Amino acid sequence: MSEVPQNKSNSYEALRTELAEIDLLSSVTALLSWDQEVMMPPSGTSLRAQQSALLSQTVHERRTSDNFRNLLERAEQDHALTSDQEAAANLREIRRGFDHAVKIPTSLVREFAATTTHAQHAWRDARANSDFTAFRPWLEKIVKLARARAECLTTPETADLYDPLLDEFEPGAKTAEIVEVFRDLRGRLTPLIRDIAGSSRRPNREVLSVTLPIPDQTAFNARIAGLVGFDFDAGRLDTSTHPFCQSIGSGDTRLTTRYRVDGFFDALSSTLHETGHGLYEQGLPKDRYPGQPLAEAVSLGIHESQSRMWENLVGRSRSFWTWALPEAKAAFGPALTDFDLETVYGAMNLVEPNLIRVDSDEATYNLHIMLRFDLERAMLSGDLKVADLPGAWNERIKADLGLDVPDDRRGCLQDVHWSMAAIGYFPTYTLGNLYAAQFWDKIREDIPQLDALIAGGEFKELLAWLRREIHVRGRRLTAPELCRTLTGKPLSALPFMSYLEGKLRPLYAL
Amino acid sequence: MSEVPQNKSNSYEALRTELAEIDLLSSVTALLSWDQEVMMPPSGTSLRAQQSALLSQTVHERRTSDNFRNLLERAEQDHALTSDQEAAANLREIRRGFDHAVKIPTSLVREFAATTTHAQHAWRDARANSDFTAFRPWLEKIVKLARARAECLTTPETADLYDPLLDEFEPGAKTAEIVEVFRDLRGRLTPLIRDIAGSSRRPNREVLSVTLPIPDQTAFNARIAGLVGFDFDAGRLDTSTHPFCQSIGSGDTRLTTRYRVDGFFDALSSTLHETGHGLYEQGLPKDRYPGQPLAEAVSLGIHESQSRMWENLVGRSRSFWTWALPEAKAAFGPALTDFDLETVYGAMNLVEPNLIRVDSDEATYNLHIMLRFDLERAMLSGDLKVADLPGAWNERIKADLGLDVPDDRRGCLQDVHWSMAAIGYFPTYTLGNLYAAQFWDKIREDIPQLDALIAGGEFKELLAWLRREIHVRGRRLTAPELCRTLTGKPLSALPFMSYLEGKLRPLYAL
Repeated sequence: MSEVPQNKSNSYEALRTELAEIDLLSSVTALLSWDQEVMMPPSGTSLRAQQSALLSQTVHERRTSDNFRNLLERAEQDHALTSDQEAAANLREIRRGFDHAVKIPTSLVREFAATTTHAQHAWRDARANSDFTAFRPWLEKIVKLARARAECLTTPETADLYDPLLDEFEPGAKTAEIVEVFRDLRGRLTPLIRDIAGSSRRPNREVLSVTLPIPDQTAFNARIAGLVGFDFDAGRLDTSTHPFCQSIGSGDTRLTTRYRVDGFFDALSSTLHETGHGLYEQGLPKDRYPGQPLAEAVSLGIHESQSRMWENLVGRSRSFWTWALPEAKAAFGPALTDFDLETVYGAMNLVEPNLIRVDSDEATYNLHIMLRFDLERAMLSGDLKVADLPGAWNERIKADLGLDVPDDRRGCLQDVHWSMAAIGYFPTYTLGNLYAAQFWDKIREDIPQLDALIAGGEFKELLAWLRREIHVRGRRLTAPELCRTLTGKPLSALPFMSYLEGKLRPLYAL
Repeated sequence: MSEVPQNKSNSYEALRTELAEIDLLSSVTALLSWDQEVMMPPSGTSLRAQQSALLSQTVHERRTSDNFRNLLERAEQDHALTSDQEAAANLREIRRGFDHAVKIPTSLVREFAATTTHAQHAWRDARANSDFTAFRPWLEKIVKLARARAECLTTPETADLYDPLLDEFEPGAKTAEIVEVFRDLRGRLTPLIRDIAGSSRRPNREVLSVTLPIPDQTAFNARIAGLVGFDFDAGRLDTSTHPFCQSIGSGDTRLTTRYRVDGFFDALSSTLHETGHGLYEQGLPKDRYPGQPLAEAVSLGIHESQSRMWENLVGRSRSFWTWALPEAKAAFGPALTDFDLETVYGAMNLVEPNLIRVDSDEATYNLHIMLRFDLERAMLSGDLKVADLPGAWNERIKADLGLDVPDDRRGCLQDVHWSMAAIGYFPTYTLGNLYAAQFWDKIREDIPQLDALIAGGEFKELLAWLRREIHVRGRRLTAPELCRTLTGKPLSALPFMSYLEGKLRPLYAL
């Protein structure tokens, strides 16, 4: 009799040991990727492609091996009758991941890794030279690979070829549902943007292009990231073309941002955004559940809710600047002296169509996402040829934002995502905005003095709430379950639009 | 009949494919190591130890597998009767590496990797706090592991337990021979150092502590490294506690140095030293022979001959400073204006006992090496307890250099090597000095205008000679073979001592 629990425990333990070792290999690929973006010299590209391909293949082989299948089946059988909720959630997600992974052949995984390493390099050059034709063959290959991947993942229930790609970033989300949510959002967003465009009130934007030395900005950004709670003993903040957060694993989370002498507020927004991702990564219980879903993020949408919260709901609030503006004035001296709180608050919430997604305001940003969402679905289905992407992009920017795209650098070459084959990723940004606003309403209920705390540079209570309610849960709940658990309601565009209108209508005297 | 050469080619090709893939994994461990020293946040230590251990184990397992043995045996049989010199050299070295590797159990390899990752971290803290007791348990463990390793590698022919460790860094070298070479060297070096100490002529050392801003030094060091030939498209130069060169692989060679505002000449010497290593790595034919001995360095002694040549024979020469001093004056302005060529040349060749090995002059440096060589042999044999290391170190420094060691930071904790379990490594530094001087005599014969070229900032001819005569050969020859091929003679301390006396006696009016 005593052997039964023993075996149960052993089968689950054996599965977890295998997961932990696969996760170790995976953490090495994370470092290869970070180093490639931030440190690697250009001639290292070919070697890096081979390194990444080999390790990705190894990880994929082990995640899809007969050994893994056996370990998982035994653990499932042994746990079928127990009431261990933690193990149940873990096993459910391990099963989901396994069923997903076995559908993709190893050769395709290896081709993805090798192609994206080269493609990212090509993209960087193409972007610098605004030369879409140099990137086109890589994007064509990536769309082809993405289609092959989607086809591998298709089931009889798949309604749209885009669904399986979306599902990799936002488990359980459906293309048709996003189309609907985006339609709702657009319905309230477009009139707001139109009203703002017609307003005679224009925030003073002068402060946004104030010139500040980059070494001072670098020090200031690191200081703010630390003060909001990022643990620099367990992380770094560096510079890269496109800001990102890369978790290597337990105790090692790396952020990047980018600086311009006349782009202080942009850089700080990027830093707060990536810090939001980094705080989530640092809050996941990775030591306790190495390589297990219990230590992983719910979804990219939820991940993005964390970054958007710090970037926008905190970082564009009047209370944040009540604290941060005196800090910035102390750090940078005369250049900022002439600007008061209301000026900075107004400038940080300026709504104005921008060619660049990451430089866009909270309102028009979502139009950028809808554009990418539509165009990548069109490329995937074949309705849009890759060669025709710049034209389609430019037309849509004109229609949605009223802007002429002067070159592809500021058009379809601006984002790194497609060079990484991350098709299905973009919609999670707007999902993140919606989740953040919906969570924020609940946080304000739970921490009534939140504004005063932020205005005093006190972020501990907010971070503690996020740690307790979101971070430590890992992937115990799905995104819709988490949303319902925290807010009592399913995801909706209402909290986001109420927040946006509540802030922007007064600012623009509407 | 046509199938025989086909098979021959296939067996060798299969071996080379396996080597290339093992090398890829190995190149990833190189990146893990570089990142650990230069980038990794402190809390990443535990994860990094696990990553390194797992990959090292995998590499070791594949290098010692039955599959590898079979591939090697088949390739050897198929090539036994051919006259392909390249394949013969390759197979000889692959066999040497395999016979060596199979003697070390995987568990020991894994323990080495995990221990040294932690030990390096402990060493960094211990050194910062000058706290030997914090490092002692790690060093005890490392000596124990080194002994276990040496015992695994011992054969009936092994004369000294230190031999197998030495052999890992300097294939074919014997402890007894080194003892003898060092005795010869000491015989001529000690009187020279004594004469210098008694000379009334003292070079002006003021220039050595001139204060220059670190950002400007950083830019200048990168510029000089580039001008002597280091390819920054295929490499980097960063900062670390202890300067080093880490080749990741083809197209990716990374150097570090270290800066102090009042240590410009030290930093530049370190940079030239690591650049010498880096030029060797960039010159090895890694693309052509991935993972094969034909693309590997001959030995650490030969590697060190390259770094010492650039650091000392070039970097402390009058001709180098004829070019470099005006460059430095242009870069740093007023701070250097008052110093002329003879002053800088004198200061760069100051002979004065120093507690720190890497800050030592070309003459007394070798006494540091002999000390470490003797003490690590004593720890290995058990004649010296690790706990007694600081005492033994301090006594010997007093006897050899006449200095009192004020703390362990400037004593037995100064070097990273033991924390990396690199016991048997130190003697290769002095072997490098000897090889460099012996090669230099030959280079001067082959390039009679060498001094004038260097004085004009022209390093292409020198680098071309090194590339042609040393770098592209890989490990085709052993170190003694290479020495005899290039200079017609076996290694000797004479060229080094003649070079040193020829330079130092006039400077000190002896």
